[in-house]
Amino acid sequence: MVDVTLLGTGGMMPLPYRWLTSLMVRYNGSSLLIDCGEGTQIAMRERGWSPNPIDVICFTHYHADHISGLPGLLLDMANSDRTEAIDIYGPKGLERVVSGLRVIAPELPFEVRLHEFSGAEHIIETHGYRLKAFKVNHSVTCYGFTFEIDRAGKFDKDAALAADIPLKFWSRLQNGETVEDGDMTYVPSMVMGPDRKGIKLTYCTDTRPVPVISENAAGSDLCILEGMYGDPEDEQKALKKKHMTMYEAAQLAADAGVDKLWLTHFSPSIGRASRYASGVKKIFENTLIPEDGETMELNFDE
Amino acid sequence: MVDVTLLGTGGMMPLPYRWLTSLMVRYNGSSLLIDCGEGTQIAMRERGWSPNPIDVICFTHYHADHISGLPGLLLDMANSDRTEAIDIYGPKGLERVVSGLRVIAPELPFEVRLHEFSGAEHIIETHGYRLKAFKVNHSVTCYGFTFEIDRAGKFDKDAALAADIPLKFWSRLQNGETVEDGDMTYVPSMVMGPDRKGIKLTYCTDTRPVPVISENAAGSDLCILEGMYGDPEDEQKALKKKHMTMYEAAQLAADAGVDKLWLTHFSPSIGRASRYASGVKKIFENTLIPEDGETMELNFDE
Repeated sequence: MVDVTLLGTGGMMPLPYRWLTSLMVRYNGSSLLIDCGEGTQIAMRERGWSPNPIDVICFTHYHADHISGLPGLLLDMANSDRTEAIDIYGPKGLERVVSGLRVIAPELPFEVRLHEFSGAEHIIETHGYRLKAFKVNHSVTCYGFTFEIDRAGKFDKDAALAADIPLKFWSRLQNGETVEDGDMTYVPSMVMGPDRKGIKLTYCTDTRPVPVISENAAGSDLCILEGMYGDPEDEQKALKKKHMTMYEAAQLAADAGVDKLWLTHFSPSIGRASRYASGVKKIFENTLIPEDGETMELNFDE
Repeated sequence: MVDVTLLGTGGMMPLPYRWLTSLMVRYNGSSLLIDCGEGTQIAMRERGWSPNPIDVICFTHYHADHISGLPGLLLDMANSDRTEAIDIYGPKGLERVVSGLRVIAPELPFEVRLHEFSGAEHIIETHGYRLKAFKVNHSVTCYGFTFEIDRAGKFDKDAALAADIPLKFWSRLQNGETVEDGDMTYVPSMVMGPDRKGIKLTYCTDTRPVPVISENAAGSDLCILEGMYGDPEDEQKALKKKHMTMYEAAQLAADAGVDKLWLTHFSPSIGRASRYASGVKKIFENTLIPEDGETMELNFDE
């Protein structure tokens, strides 16, 4: 139902064997891209994807490794004859940064709609899902995101029959409408069971491990967190540069009670990130240290 | 002596199997980069090179596929603790374009010296070589470059002895100095034979095949030209978008009497560019349709 692909797993700079961290979330014919560093368009093409279906791009912050690929991606869309507008969301500064970068992509055959946000958190409802940006703690203003799809309760046929609700109104009630019929008013709660568990994904890179991350990630089916460093001696670097170690990320996942954790945004100094897996799993067992292109399908529970 | 590497051979957009066109010329401890599209820093790293030895960057023009990799490259240098200034040369607009792109690389621990040029041609003498930018004919202002190293004539010991020039002045004369000694004046031409053939490299992409290209490329040891299209039916596209076909490039090389031709800047629509080799060689036999990373050493004649 929701197809999640981590296009790259690197931080700071793209490497011959590791693209920069960027997430593609595909749902119901719509594609959301979070962050777009240098080479993200190539990582997409490696998967056989055109950038054209992307309708929403979100930025966590404006360090180059998270946005330098934007002009190339927009031009790529232009070359594919895109005419549909694109919505780009990001922290305050979006207009300034995108204007700067568009010095090499000034003319596009589609509208680029920029949406800046600020404050501790910001909700975006679009294309049938809900994004929440929550402010984290990096060297510049930076946000994490949750991606959620709600799921209504089950239709209770017996309740509808017992309340004598005409069959012709059932589907409207199921769709959340209130129906007036003469003197009678029927409301969805008369026929719908309690909301069921939806789908929740959390994505957060470039931050110290602050409690707001586990608070927001709580109950996620998949939580993708930065694990910039794996060597215990790199803890000081993480503190200084305001990044997380893999162990700090794992502790956040444990605190949040997520289902699965993927680590990403590995320092260029890390060759094979998976060699830290056993240490990280001691803190949070269901951790994956993925390769570029790792994919997972998130579905409603049966 | 001069090490030439074509880091990529693509045009328009980087592909999983083809980096964007960019040339590295290494001479005497100095490195010159011509153009820097998205992914050029990765192409360099694939060769095992750090960007740090680059002291000069030249831009042919400001279409994104020739400059979008600049902020990432500069940040990469910053991460390698570079402190030496870098000189960047390009057509009018350089300040505006680099300022725009540096919105994501505002603080660097080294000076970025920008040198704009305009007009039909412009000479740059630096690091022991001479670059000449010559204006070509693209959809935006665009220049080709020649890279030349002169070579003085041979020292003529017999002439020095015959003219009774004291031995202590020989090396100064050989270095081009005029030496005054009492009433006597010694000039280099007294002891130096005629200038010998130096080294000449020409690089030109993104243009229609105008005569100024073959005029400037005349006598090059290596001439690198755009061959955007290989299919005869793409001639109209080349005309419209102001690019060259491989056959037009080969004709320029033939007109210029260069030693070797490399084609580059292949359209993304071309999978294996070498399939056009036999047709191109009918026009200019000594043509190579290179892969990314093609390298050649240019030396003075023995």
